[in-house]
Amino acid sequence: MNLKRYLPALQWLSDYQRSTFANDLLAGVIMTVVLIPQSLAYAMLAGLPAHVGLYASIFPPILYAFFGTSRTLAVGPVAVTALMTAAALGGVVAPGSPEYMAAALLLAVMSGLMLLVMGLLRLGFVANFLSHPVVSGFVSASGILIVASQLGSLTGIATSGHNLLTLGGSLIAGWATLNLPTLVLGAGVLAFLMFTRTRLKPLLVAMGLAPALAGMLVRVAPVVAVAITTALALTWQLADAGVVLVGSVPTGLPGLTLPSLDPQHWKNMALSALLISVVSFISSVSVAQTFAAKRRQRIDPDQELIALGAANLGAGFSGGMPVTGGMSRTVVSYDSGAETPASGVFTAAGLALVTLTLTQALAFLPVATLAAIIMIAAATLVDVPALVRTWHYAKADFVAMLATIVLTLGHSLDAGLVAGVGLSLALYLYRTSRPHVALVGRVPGTEHFRNVLRHQVETRPTLGMLRVDESLYFANSRFLEEAVLELVSRYPEMTDLVLVCSGANLIDASALASLEGIHERLADASIKLHLSEVKGPVMDRLQRTEFLEKLSGRVYLSTFQAWCELG
Amino acid sequence: MNLKRYLPALQWLSDYQRSTFANDLLAGVIMTVVLIPQSLAYAMLAGLPAHVGLYASIFPPILYAFFGTSRTLAVGPVAVTALMTAAALGGVVAPGSPEYMAAALLLAVMSGLMLLVMGLLRLGFVANFLSHPVVSGFVSASGILIVASQLGSLTGIATSGHNLLTLGGSLIAGWATLNLPTLVLGAGVLAFLMFTRTRLKPLLVAMGLAPALAGMLVRVAPVVAVAITTALALTWQLADAGVVLVGSVPTGLPGLTLPSLDPQHWKNMALSALLISVVSFISSVSVAQTFAAKRRQRIDPDQELIALGAANLGAGFSGGMPVTGGMSRTVVSYDSGAETPASGVFTAAGLALVTLTLTQALAFLPVATLAAIIMIAAATLVDVPALVRTWHYAKADFVAMLATIVLTLGHSLDAGLVAGVGLSLALYLYRTSRPHVALVGRVPGTEHFRNVLRHQVETRPTLGMLRVDESLYFANSRFLEEAVLELVSRYPEMTDLVLVCSGANLIDASALASLEGIHERLADASIKLHLSEVKGPVMDRLQRTEFLEKLSGRVYLSTFQAWCELG
Repeated sequence: MNLKRYLPALQWLSDYQRSTFANDLLAGVIMTVVLIPQSLAYAMLAGLPAHVGLYASIFPPILYAFFGTSRTLAVGPVAVTALMTAAALGGVVAPGSPEYMAAALLLAVMSGLMLLVMGLLRLGFVANFLSHPVVSGFVSASGILIVASQLGSLTGIATSGHNLLTLGGSLIAGWATLNLPTLVLGAGVLAFLMFTRTRLKPLLVAMGLAPALAGMLVRVAPVVAVAITTALALTWQLADAGVVLVGSVPTGLPGLTLPSLDPQHWKNMALSALLISVVSFISSVSVAQTFAAKRRQRIDPDQELIALGAANLGAGFSGGMPVTGGMSRTVVSYDSGAETPASGVFTAAGLALVTLTLTQALAFLPVATLAAIIMIAAATLVDVPALVRTWHYAKADFVAMLATIVLTLGHSLDAGLVAGVGLSLALYLYRTSRPHVALVGRVPGTEHFRNVLRHQVETRPTLGMLRVDESLYFANSRFLEEAVLELVSRYPEMTDLVLVCSGANLIDASALASLEGIHERLADASIKLHLSEVKGPVMDRLQRTEFLEKLSGRVYLSTFQAWCELG
Repeated sequence: MNLKRYLPALQWLSDYQRSTFANDLLAGVIMTVVLIPQSLAYAMLAGLPAHVGLYASIFPPILYAFFGTSRTLAVGPVAVTALMTAAALGGVVAPGSPEYMAAALLLAVMSGLMLLVMGLLRLGFVANFLSHPVVSGFVSASGILIVASQLGSLTGIATSGHNLLTLGGSLIAGWATLNLPTLVLGAGVLAFLMFTRTRLKPLLVAMGLAPALAGMLVRVAPVVAVAITTALALTWQLADAGVVLVGSVPTGLPGLTLPSLDPQHWKNMALSALLISVVSFISSVSVAQTFAAKRRQRIDPDQELIALGAANLGAGFSGGMPVTGGMSRTVVSYDSGAETPASGVFTAAGLALVTLTLTQALAFLPVATLAAIIMIAAATLVDVPALVRTWHYAKADFVAMLATIVLTLGHSLDAGLVAGVGLSLALYLYRTSRPHVALVGRVPGTEHFRNVLRHQVETRPTLGMLRVDESLYFANSRFLEEAVLELVSRYPEMTDLVLVCSGANLIDASALASLEGIHERLADASIKLHLSEVKGPVMDRLQRTEFLEKLSGRVYLSTFQAWCELG
């Protein structure tokens, strides 16, 4: 039983059938073709040799297939984490150096270890710190940064930097080095891909093709672009015209690689590795859940952490880079009819075959082609309407989102995420630190008590009844003290105060200390403190303290009872 | 009107009377006497020349008197902030150097500016981040560290370090340099102070003295210790026996001083200054509120920030050190009958007189006497029962408290506070990230709906009704998705799901995104989503979105209505 929990693959392997095998194999073949350009492109986005993307698409998905709980999720290099990888490495080692590759392996291993530890300690809730507006803002900003980072490769200008200011600066500074053949080729691929995305599918359907088949053909467009531009580069000797090609790619499967052991690298990349882990986890789980729901399946987030951890460790020891479950690769897998993670294993085998056979041809692939593929994919990450919707829905969420975007674009990915998390926590605490508090009175002739400011109610000058519509915890405990003391200073005749606790799902130690403080201060002013409508679990806790023994007043089941007895 | 808000002194000054004046003056005289040893001692605790404590007790309380809203609070150097000052400066400049003094002034100015800005921006809620168990643990740990830090002065051994490990290490390493006359004198003062604290008051009362007067005499004990040991040092030439004395103290009022302008100091002390500001604010406001309640007065926390900011700026420009409102000095002020902040002004005048006349004598004061006074005061900060109480009341609060104590003692004050804040936030989010969720059914024959696990209720296989007892926000939005998807995977016949929102005071943008995700995934599985018992303000917000238009189901006023219509 326990083995099945930690090795979910045992579940689908135990009743694996011939028809499933056929479907998975076909999906694997389609996936292999579609993933070649994607894998190459995201390695390049991370500043790594293009073949690293292929390596990262071999062992990681196999490991995920054994440990993951999603039947559909496709794991490999993904745009946002590739960008985060480039930023993390850029701050530590020189791009293009052998240390850069070693640091990339280390980053995958660190992020794998963090994911694994979070999974074993069942710390999946850590992802809750990243609120939806922060993630949405971060992904949009990443999309913009990705597009900006590829403008260099698309134009032949050498760019550097990891935010809009430095990227834009280097682009302007290097303007004179623009290579026209590169730009023409890149723009051509861009136009071709845009056409296939927006026009080709309706056209094919209008020509009588089945929509599913038409959709699949559109997905193959990047492969066509890769094949055509590689052929052009080879026949026209475009390298002589200054067009940068991928260059020599080692033939063969990745060997066992060892990540950098420099402790300075561990230290400098710790925060980045953590953020990559959390972002990987969130994007992976949300993709996995989307597809699991379509088939009424379930995924286990804590086991997903373990599976992603294993996949990243695998990447780190087989010449790869940080990986995660990606939306675009998973859509391909789902649409091509994959039924179990076996399709991922077949895809891995297919890509392994590519590293054994196609590397000679890939050396002639123009880098600008990959840049265009990346830009088209990244543009879909930018979600401007989300910004507008959040503005209309809740200003606090909008502020957190905007801060994330501005800092991500203007400073760094890490700063954007950290500021977003900090700000959303601060704003949430701010909101709950001033809960709705109402002085209540009796609706005449009934047992109901309502806000004195909104309703015609009976009150007595000697009896104050205060209702707080929130759990009492550290963020609002001081507010509660102030609210009570303010009330008492306004009603000098008051002799009894009833705190109506109907809204308190929790009273933590800070709130208890505040209640004790309130009790003491009311005693100083000769006012008795009573409680009413205390919830069961809250009462259980209070009974373990001395507070109830010392209480000058009583605990009433209902506010009406307090009203009658204190009359 | 506005002027009175920013200068609360105008309120009490406008009806200041002769009888009030007499009471305030008497209190000022008593305070002056009692505060001499306290002020000297806390400057020494901060690693500063003893007279700095006097300087910091002159201008800061005068400024507080004009800007503060408490009528009783006494502002000056305080044990915990003095310890934090020593730790902050120790990490930046060499103790005893002229730069050390300049950095202390800078720290006061930085903390003053931060308090002022927080006050002007009405950011008092920032203090809510420090939960009660964290503050309590921090103060206890500070008490232990203060005692440990004074063991060196009490024994004549030169110690260094700002945590128990380094302090203890230097004490053991320097064991051979123990000075017996110093230890005898220090232990004598310690024994005398302990006796007066625990035995003298009952003895005096038994002898027929009024308890109030007896209490006041006990408070004067440190003054007596200072006077006697100074006389002993002078007559027996204790300096020759190796007893360290306070040494030459400049005569006269403090002049205008300028804090260090080294930008490196600003940067290195920023976090410490912020933590000192927040701790100052919290301790000051809690003391002020305690005494305001006794007289049914009110204090305004945001104005307190401004007043404390002004006091610290004053300290920074008049040769002082970071100051705050202290419990022990405020008790003295209250007990000696002070009625308005004018008593603080008189105390300041008294201490100014001391700097003009008594400095010759103070030069002979043994440092061990001050160490003993500090240790006795610090021992009262250690609150072990609070640890036990918190353990019994709430484990999560206990964990945050223990982490604060362990890190404060074992690493540093800053690390303790930061870890405490981080951990209490994480634990709170963890708690609310898994709210109570119940599948409900109809209590037969009624309109009530209860948890199917606890009550005998009617259910239908096609209709799921889920109640969530918490506001829906980013920390629990993913949990909600999982809870709903888990439910759906358990009931394959379900065609309608009603989300009972009676417990949701808030639905933020993350929760809205989760609801949209849930809606979409339920649609994939051909299940309609309905809402019931949505609160007014929450509904107002939802109506500004497209969610309600797209909703496959309906929004019902009551769960019973949903039950009837979906039957």
